[in-house]
Amino acid sequence: MTDLDLAQILATISGADSAAMEAAKRRQAELAKPPGSLGGLEEMSIRLSGITGKIHNSLEKRRILVLAADNGVVAEGVAATPQSVTMSQAINMTRHLTGMSALAQFFRDDVVVTDVGICSDCPCPLVRNRKIRYGTANLYREPAMTRQECLEAIAVGLALAREAKADGIELIGVGEMGIGNTTTSSAVLACLTGSPAQAVTGRGAGLTDQAFARKKEVIDSALALHGPDRQDPVDVLAKVGGLDLAAMTGVYLGCAQMRIPAVVDGFISIVAALCAVRLCSKVRDFLFLSHISYEIGYQIAQKELALSACLDLHMRLGEGSGCPLAFQILRGACAVMNHMATFAQAEIRDDYLAQLRRGDAFSVKS
Amino acid sequence: MTDLDLAQILATISGADSAAMEAAKRRQAELAKPPGSLGGLEEMSIRLSGITGKIHNSLEKRRILVLAADNGVVAEGVAATPQSVTMSQAINMTRHLTGMSALAQFFRDDVVVTDVGICSDCPCPLVRNRKIRYGTANLYREPAMTRQECLEAIAVGLALAREAKADGIELIGVGEMGIGNTTTSSAVLACLTGSPAQAVTGRGAGLTDQAFARKKEVIDSALALHGPDRQDPVDVLAKVGGLDLAAMTGVYLGCAQMRIPAVVDGFISIVAALCAVRLCSKVRDFLFLSHISYEIGYQIAQKELALSACLDLHMRLGEGSGCPLAFQILRGACAVMNHMATFAQAEIRDDYLAQLRRGDAFSVKS
Repeated sequence: MTDLDLAQILATISGADSAAMEAAKRRQAELAKPPGSLGGLEEMSIRLSGITGKIHNSLEKRRILVLAADNGVVAEGVAATPQSVTMSQAINMTRHLTGMSALAQFFRDDVVVTDVGICSDCPCPLVRNRKIRYGTANLYREPAMTRQECLEAIAVGLALAREAKADGIELIGVGEMGIGNTTTSSAVLACLTGSPAQAVTGRGAGLTDQAFARKKEVIDSALALHGPDRQDPVDVLAKVGGLDLAAMTGVYLGCAQMRIPAVVDGFISIVAALCAVRLCSKVRDFLFLSHISYEIGYQIAQKELALSACLDLHMRLGEGSGCPLAFQILRGACAVMNHMATFAQAEIRDDYLAQLRRGDAFSVKS
Repeated sequence: MTDLDLAQILATISGADSAAMEAAKRRQAELAKPPGSLGGLEEMSIRLSGITGKIHNSLEKRRILVLAADNGVVAEGVAATPQSVTMSQAINMTRHLTGMSALAQFFRDDVVVTDVGICSDCPCPLVRNRKIRYGTANLYREPAMTRQECLEAIAVGLALAREAKADGIELIGVGEMGIGNTTTSSAVLACLTGSPAQAVTGRGAGLTDQAFARKKEVIDSALALHGPDRQDPVDVLAKVGGLDLAAMTGVYLGCAQMRIPAVVDGFISIVAALCAVRLCSKVRDFLFLSHISYEIGYQIAQKELALSACLDLHMRLGEGSGCPLAFQILRGACAVMNHMATFAQAEIRDDYLAQLRRGDAFSVKS
């Protein structure tokens, strides 16, 4: 994929269907409840209408797309977990053994795990092989990847969204597996928001004070060394990002292009969402935040996106683990829109009361 | 039921099983994830173990108990909705037409609606008739009910929890329907916390400025008139509460007695939960908050209970509408505990496991 190809794809993305959203708002106002009393559930149903163009939506075919890749920056001691865990957990996801995948299987969501840059060959055939390279370079010393590699990773994400559409998927969650990716995400977020590492960097999966200080030093140093152009998210992703982040950015772009609602998981997932929105602001219309991640940078990215999360569970596992939970809340939002009575239907009419009093309405059941 | 009967029941309630909770904590620590990274889901699974005594729990049989009653205080113009809506919505709940019941049907939760004091005869046989009286008295002028009536309403709630246990119910949600019950709930909360009405009273289902001012005036005036004893929740419920609140208090007590986890909905539901905890502090171990209600008093009651809610959806419908959503999150917490791999099963390398066991897993990696 070239920059021109990407620009052409971005040009095809249109935002929410405002007429459909107005129709959904009118329907919500007809439902028998105090106006606005279902808060976020009402907003979700209205935003879903803006995506699909329909008032009544079903979210019965759901998929979590997990992008897995390694990050060369782990050589700097910024991760608490051995790099080999990227591959072992990518494999475990296909076996429904990890946090996200145990939840996804329980709630009957598909999980598709794609290798866009694990640093060794993955022997598991259930992990899709779309490897761009064997892990990124160490961004502390050189750019994580070339611009072309970054564009190819974005293309992988776009293709996954297209495939989901072809499979009839109605709701997508965006997850990841990549040791070291809270460092790359913090670096990308620091660059996009013009903040120092200190302001956007957390301890990830649990660092010592010393390793945490090192992580921030590595980020600030890499940003100074490569000087990524914050107006050009592809440049930022290539220089201080990761293959997982780039591919996830592509998934969000693809969801907008295919008009599929996309659920954001935690910190890494929201940084990729922010990259996609910086590439094309209309992508925001397709995003739903699942949970407020415990990682400090999450709330900064959330503020940039001006979206609110429905769950507060102090989670910081990543993988896409917030998505199966948020999927159920979104299904609930559809259930309200699809099944609640209107004021007209809710009114207990005199003839119905008379019927009740005669005992013939519930005679079979009672 | 007498005060002595109630005291005897309270004496039978024991708190969480700390040995089971410790075993659940140990199991969570064995699961292949950074310690604590599933936050609230881990806490939920551990607290559930404290209730059931088992590490692995299933929440497949769920029920929402709705207590419906009218409140004489509506004569003072404190409610935006006609009193007849209590009965019509109680009936609509049995037909899966209201917000809560549409969600409950969608997620396959039972709904049991019980009339403990609707102000006219309810002709629908699916609404259980456990009417204590035809609505309460107007608390602005006289006590809402007698102490005996309050005890009888509590007994109805206790019996509903016992019945749920006999039916094999594993999770209960506590909802309500009663026009005027944000006024009674605010009055009870003001008394229990020693706060003025101003601090705990919201606009309920949507009052004008004038009616909102009147609502607060009515509450302060009633508290001054009746002087309920804040050390005696039964006295508070009888003088300025409602039959729905009293019966819901009984449900929470019954859930603790029967060792069934109880999910709190919004403002009215949490005030009843607080009454139950004031009657017996061990009841707190059985409570799970669903969502942060938009009503101002909710957060005051939440602080008193020192529990956190998992959902933030700006909802203020009541009925029990947060319960079906929280039920799914609690099911997710069980799915993690029941289906995630341990470090051993995840085939994370032995040396990493050894490192974790030595407690230096998060040292700087060179």
